[in-house]
Amino acid sequence: MAQNRYLKLGTFLQGVGSSMSLWRHPEVEADASIRFPLYVDLARKAEAGKFDFVFIADGLHINENSIPHFLNRFEPLTLLSALAAATSQIGLVGTLSTSYSEPFTVARQFSSLDHISGGRAGWNVVTSPSDGAAANFNKGRHPAHDDRYRIAEEYLEVATGLWDSWEDDAFIRDKTSGVFFDPAKLHRLNHKGEFFSVQGPLNIARSKQGRPIIFQAGSSEAGRNLAAKTADAVFTGQETLEEARAFYKDVKTRAQAYGRSPGEVLIFPGISVIVGRTAEEAERKYEEIAGLGSIHDALTYLSRFFGYHDFTQYPLDEPFPELGDFGSDGFRSTTDKIKKDAKELHLTLRQVALRASTPRTAFIGTPEHIADQLEEWFREEAADGFIIGSGVPGGFHDFVDQVVPLLQQRGLYRNEYEEDTLRGHLGLAYPENRYTKQKITN
Amino acid sequence: MAQNRYLKLGTFLQGVGSSMSLWRHPEVEADASIRFPLYVDLARKAEAGKFDFVFIADGLHINENSIPHFLNRFEPLTLLSALAAATSQIGLVGTLSTSYSEPFTVARQFSSLDHISGGRAGWNVVTSPSDGAAANFNKGRHPAHDDRYRIAEEYLEVATGLWDSWEDDAFIRDKTSGVFFDPAKLHRLNHKGEFFSVQGPLNIARSKQGRPIIFQAGSSEAGRNLAAKTADAVFTGQETLEEARAFYKDVKTRAQAYGRSPGEVLIFPGISVIVGRTAEEAERKYEEIAGLGSIHDALTYLSRFFGYHDFTQYPLDEPFPELGDFGSDGFRSTTDKIKKDAKELHLTLRQVALRASTPRTAFIGTPEHIADQLEEWFREEAADGFIIGSGVPGGFHDFVDQVVPLLQQRGLYRNEYEEDTLRGHLGLAYPENRYTKQKITN
Ligand SMILES: Cc1cc2nc3c(=O)[nH]c(=O)nc-3n(C[C@H](O)[C@H](O)[C@H](O)COP(=O)(O)O)c2cc1C
Ligand SMILES: Cc1cc2nc3c(=O)[nH]c(=O)nc-3n(C[C@H](O)[C@H](O)[C@H](O)COP(=O)(O)O)c2cc1C
Repeated sequence: MAQNRYLKLGTFLQGVGSSMSLWRHPEVEADASIRFPLYVDLARKAEAGKFDFVFIADGLHINENSIPHFLNRFEPLTLLSALAAATSQIGLVGTLSTSYSEPFTVARQFSSLDHISGGRAGWNVVTSPSDGAAANFNKGRHPAHDDRYRIAEEYLEVATGLWDSWEDDAFIRDKTSGVFFDPAKLHRLNHKGEFFSVQGPLNIARSKQGRPIIFQAGSSEAGRNLAAKTADAVFTGQETLEEARAFYKDVKTRAQAYGRSPGEVLIFPGISVIVGRTAEEAERKYEEIAGLGSIHDALTYLSRFFGYHDFTQYPLDEPFPELGDFGSDGFRSTTDKIKKDAKELHLTLRQVALRASTPRTAFIGTPEHIADQLEEWFREEAADGFIIGSGVPGGFHDFVDQVVPLLQQRGLYRNEYEEDTLRGHLGLAYPENRYTKQKITN
Repeated sequence: MAQNRYLKLGTFLQGVGSSMSLWRHPEVEADASIRFPLYVDLARKAEAGKFDFVFIADGLHINENSIPHFLNRFEPLTLLSALAAATSQIGLVGTLSTSYSEPFTVARQFSSLDHISGGRAGWNVVTSPSDGAAANFNKGRHPAHDDRYRIAEEYLEVATGLWDSWEDDAFIRDKTSGVFFDPAKLHRLNHKGEFFSVQGPLNIARSKQGRPIIFQAGSSEAGRNLAAKTADAVFTGQETLEEARAFYKDVKTRAQAYGRSPGEVLIFPGISVIVGRTAEEAERKYEEIAGLGSIHDALTYLSRFFGYHDFTQYPLDEPFPELGDFGSDGFRSTTDKIKKDAKELHLTLRQVALRASTPRTAFIGTPEHIADQLEEWFREEAADGFIIGSGVPGGFHDFVDQVVPLLQQRGLYRNEYEEDTLRGHLGLAYPENRYTKQKITN
């Protein structure tokens, strides 16, 4: 059984949805990706369901074949900041790439969000899978996979260093003496590394939770090592209980090798959930969604993971084509998985495309069925928690109203928030400022 | 008389204040710079006063001598996004430097704020006066003054280009046909310039006001030209009616030389206001503020504009020292002005420092006096509006409660918002998308 008493829950905020065609569903507002009030509704519903956090994915490059949600959507930091003012307890986690940004600015913006929200910020650190981003950022070339991870690791060193610029009790604010702060508790990072050179100090104090929570979302060797070494939480795409258990064990073991306790890094599979009053109703909802898009849309969606490779050149109903090493850089873990499944399950191109565009997950069924699955994954050490994606319109409300109460009855989930920071919700320890720690141990 | 029927009003949001010592005032909350609810109060008070916008200054580098507000404050985009959710009509203007950021990210974040707020975003474009910022951003050297402005100009070309990526009617969202957007109305910028190379398209549509409003805040030759060519509004530091008239005329004339109408660029002096029931009460409040800090604090404050030059080496009560060209790069227009005044008015170092740290403006007095001054500046073509800084705690509430009603009685100020975008408040025209315009004129 996992270290934490309760399983943890986050939910994706994803406007018109993470697939090519969900926007065509009659009950979906087709401009949802750009309607702030709909995000407020979802975040408040999640807060009413005592969720740990909302989660926003992101990307830095679009083209004519991007999924509709990506074409026209809010930027995560601005959206989360606005949601900070519209909510009071739920964690606010946003994706930002270390390949195309400046650590000083990003450390500052996440810290500012952390202060505005009273200690509820989280940063999902990604390295940008798509090389199209390079063209938007004055870079000739997208850095190679392992370079991106080396950049990310140094970037996180800088960001966490900047967050410690001020010790917790650095601000004195004594009106009589005129002393605003204690200069001995202000620290310059003076970082000079391979990729970054950043002096500091940061112009913002530590937050109520010390610093923002770090999520990580890559699943390759390099990605797992980064997570094991530096992340508080991992967002992963494992689809079956066995895969998820293996991934869970792997990351926790790596964390121990880095001298951390397994409970310091929490594993969150992202799952797509469809709730029905009966199994048949859930299945009907799934079929309705799967039927919304054309096979052409499904091929386009699939091609995204393979550098927009043109799949229309292959016969649909023959075995998934041999692609060699193709597409293995950007979404390496995703494409490896697709190829492996195609080979092992003898899937055709059509089957692969449909599975990718509308995944049939273990979490489709009655509230009891879904609660059983969540409980099993949690008890079997496949997950410390889940990030819930709703495959169907209104599905998230169904999850909160019908599945969460079952988890609560089973003692698997909180009835009330115990704390008011994201760190508190996740049961993670307050990170001592590095300079304060040095003084204590000296 | 200015083109606009009403004068325009913005207010600074500046936590513990823009001086070294205001935080020591008994009625100031010394941690105000980092308390979100206080910003919400101010923004809502400004909205109750039918203000056009709130305005946030910014900086990217601090040291032990920075003014207290700069040491520990929110980052503008996150703060404004949070305020977007806490207000409904007032404009939200934030400062961001073109010397240390990426146009794709900044265009995207301001556009996202613009969407979240329903068309209320503004961007105060600055070039970063302080060369300390370079050390926080992987740059060996701060770019020289005129280079910073050349960078800024190209940066704005890129940002405004990205904001036109999607024509206004590009999103079709027809569920039946499955057409989400019209590819003929999606445009790649393909910018390749001296400093930037950005392909696009941006992953967000145009906003209700077309694009964010551009403020500009440099007063040198290069700064005025940039403003005249590209800005919708100019934030300036002119202190006397004569100076302000000259600046106003100069920028409007330059705008005409660039083929724009004078009404397309609005001039906003930033002014520090102290309201008293009587002239004596206002004067007492001024004296109280001026007396809060030591002469040492005042020298430190002054040194900020001169690259942290050490002024303690000079005698206090002798004429302001000859500094030659010193400090003329970063805050060029400010330091030129300080030197000019010192020479013309035969000021000592002590007098210069005190004037700089607690300026005695024309806007200290009774509500009638202040309304008279504002009216005069407006009618005499010294200003299209003002950005109000409150020199004393609670001063902004006094301004809204006591001065705004007088402006309304005189027909100089709105009683109700006529529009709900910042562009609408400012009376500026909707900017046609460049590609749509091309099609119409072809
Ligand atoms: C579950 C999961 C979610 C991800 N979410 C994002 C995202 O929102 N934005 C992004 O740019 N990259 C995202 N990535 C991409 C990763 O940051 C990384 O660039 C990519 O997966 C390649 O790294 P890997 O080979 O370690 O998986 C995600 C990856 C995974 C596995
Ligand atoms: C009234 C005024 C306000 C300014 N506000 C800011 C600010 O908030 N942040 C900043 O980095 N620079 C600010 N600046 C600095 C300018 O962007 C510019 O870098 C500096 O003034 C030098 O340019 P100039 O010589 O054209 O004035 C301001 C300048 C003026 C005149």
